[in-house]
Amino acid sequence: MPDRRPEGPTVVTGGAGAIGSFLVDRLLSDGRSVRVVDNFSTGQRSNLPEARAGLSVHACDLGAGEPPAELFRGAAELWHLAANADIRRGSADPAVDLRNGSLAAFHTLEQARRQDVPRLLFSSSSTVYGLASVLPTPESYGPLEPESLYGAAKLGAEGLVSAYAHSYGITAYIFRFANIIDGRMNHGILHDFFEKLRADPGRLEVLGDGSQSKSYLRTEDCVGGMLHVARSVRAPVNVYNLGAEDRTSVRAIAEKVVAAHGGRAAIVYGQGPRGWVGDVPQQLLAIDKVRGLGWRPSATSTGAIDRTIAELADRRGITPAPRA
Amino acid sequence: MPDRRPEGPTVVTGGAGAIGSFLVDRLLSDGRSVRVVDNFSTGQRSNLPEARAGLSVHACDLGAGEPPAELFRGAAELWHLAANADIRRGSADPAVDLRNGSLAAFHTLEQARRQDVPRLLFSSSSTVYGLASVLPTPESYGPLEPESLYGAAKLGAEGLVSAYAHSYGITAYIFRFANIIDGRMNHGILHDFFEKLRADPGRLEVLGDGSQSKSYLRTEDCVGGMLHVARSVRAPVNVYNLGAEDRTSVRAIAEKVVAAHGGRAAIVYGQGPRGWVGDVPQQLLAIDKVRGLGWRPSATSTGAIDRTIAELADRRGITPAPRA
Repeated sequence: MPDRRPEGPTVVTGGAGAIGSFLVDRLLSDGRSVRVVDNFSTGQRSNLPEARAGLSVHACDLGAGEPPAELFRGAAELWHLAANADIRRGSADPAVDLRNGSLAAFHTLEQARRQDVPRLLFSSSSTVYGLASVLPTPESYGPLEPESLYGAAKLGAEGLVSAYAHSYGITAYIFRFANIIDGRMNHGILHDFFEKLRADPGRLEVLGDGSQSKSYLRTEDCVGGMLHVARSVRAPVNVYNLGAEDRTSVRAIAEKVVAAHGGRAAIVYGQGPRGWVGDVPQQLLAIDKVRGLGWRPSATSTGAIDRTIAELADRRGITPAPRA
Repeated sequence: MPDRRPEGPTVVTGGAGAIGSFLVDRLLSDGRSVRVVDNFSTGQRSNLPEARAGLSVHACDLGAGEPPAELFRGAAELWHLAANADIRRGSADPAVDLRNGSLAAFHTLEQARRQDVPRLLFSSSSTVYGLASVLPTPESYGPLEPESLYGAAKLGAEGLVSAYAHSYGITAYIFRFANIIDGRMNHGILHDFFEKLRADPGRLEVLGDGSQSKSYLRTEDCVGGMLHVARSVRAPVNVYNLGAEDRTSVRAIAEKVVAAHGGRAAIVYGQGPRGWVGDVPQQLLAIDKVRGLGWRPSATSTGAIDRTIAELADRRGITPAPRA
C-alpha cells in the first residue's frame, strides 16, 4: 500500500533531542524533507546540522497550545517525539508531564488531524507498564499501571494516538522504548554518573541500592527499529516494544563508569530498590513482536552501556589510568 | 486493615450525575458525610436530596483548574466520577474530553494529593479496550486501543490514578464500566430513543445497522459492585471490570423501546456496524475478577434494559397500547 502523500515532508516534534535528531539525520539521508518542531528545553540546536537541504527548524512550545497550521500542512507523516525527557522531574512537579506530555500530545495530534496528516508515529515508553509482573513484558500485558507521572502521560498519549487513528482514519505507530542511550544525551543515568564524577572524582553516589536492573538500547537501534516497523506493517494502530534482550544492573553501570574514570572513585549506594519516586526498578521488554518483523538491535544492553560510556569518555577527554 | 481516616468525609466529583447521585445516596445511608463536587453540566441538583445531614454540595468546574483545597481537606476518600458523559461529543470536538476528562482528572488528583487523601476511586470505562479481539474482555487485556476521545481520556486518567497511587502511597481503585443505565440518565441510547419517539412517534432512526451489541448494567449494580470491591481488596492499584455477563443488540433495544411505545413506530436503520465515529460496536467485559470477590450484578444486560425502559416509560407517562 503506497503512502497517500509519499512526497510530503515529515514533521518531527522533539527533533532537536538526542533521539529526534538522530531520526532527522536518517530521514534526510533517505531523501525526505523534514520539519523539526522543538521547544529547545532539552533539545539542542547543535544536535542538528547548521544548514541542510530539506531541513527546516521551528521553535514551538507544544505544551502551550496548538502549533501553527503551516508546520503540518501537506505533511506525509508526523513523528511525535517531544516530551519531558526527565522522568524524575515529574514526581516532584506533576504539572511538567501534564504540560509537556499530555497537553503537548493533544495539541500536536489535533493540528495534525486538522491538516489531514495520514501517518502518526509516537515514542511511548516501557514506563507505561509500571512494575510488570511478567518479564520480559509483551505488548499485550495488562493492566497497565505506570508508576511515574511520565509513564502516565505516555499512556494518556497512547490513548490519544489510538483514538485519533481509529476515529479519523490515521495510521498510527506506538513504540514503547526501553531506556534509550547515547553520548549526546543530557539526562539519564550515564550522564548523571559522569556529571557526579566531574563534580567529585573521588565519590559516586548512586540513587537506590544498585539492584535496579533495566534494558538499555542505543539511539541508532531505537531509530532503526522504528523505521523498520514503519516500513513493515500498516494496521490502524501498531504497538511495538523496542529494547534489548538482556538488561544491566545499576551496580554494573556504576562500576563501569568508575572504571572508565580510572577506577579510583568510591561507589556509595543509597537505600531501597528504587532510585526515586516513580522509578520502575525492574524492566525488560519482550521484543518477540518486532523480531517477528525481522529486526533486532545491533547491541545488547550491556554492549549499549559500554559503547555509550566510551562515547561519553571520549567527548569529555577522559582517559582512564592504565589498570594494574 | 482499617482506613487511615475512617471518620473523614467522602468527596464525590460528578456527584450530581446519575451514577454519582446514586452513590451519594448509598454513602449517606451508610452514615458517611459526603461532599459533592459537580459543574452541573450533565449532573442535576434534582438528583440530590434538598437538605440532608452530612451532605454538602459544591459547584466547581474541575476542567478549569485546581479545585479549592477545603473541598478535599480531611477527606478519607475521593470518588472521581466527573467526566464528559456524552461519548459522541468527543469525536466532533476532541477538546471536550481533554478538558472534562484528562484535565479534570489531573486537577482533582493533584489537589487530593496535596490534601493527603489516602483513597482514590475512579470510574473508568470499557471504552479503554477499544474493539477488543477477546470477548469477554478481561482486565489483563492489551494493548489498549481506545476508539473514542472519551476512551482515550479515561485511559489517560487511569494512568494518572496509577502514578499517583504508586508515587504517593495512595490506595486506588479503577472501575471499568460497561454501559451504565437507569431512568435518571439524560444521555445514552435509551434516552435518545425515547427522545426521538417523543419528537416523531411514527419513526425511530437508529445510528448504525443495529448489529452493535453491548453489555448494559444498572446504576444500582454499578454502585453496589464498586462498594463491594472497595471493601474487599486493598492493593496499591485495583482494576476491576463491572458489567453484565450477557449483552444486548441495538436492534433488540430499538424493538423493545418501540414496543413500550405501543409498537407503531417504524424502525429505520443506518449504514454500517458503528453508530458513530469512535463507537465500539461489540463490547462485553469479563467479570470473573469481581465475581471472584463474591459479587455479581442483580440484573442481566437484557434485564437491565427492560427495567430501564419500564422506568423511562413510567416517568414519561407512556402506557403502551394493549398488544393484539
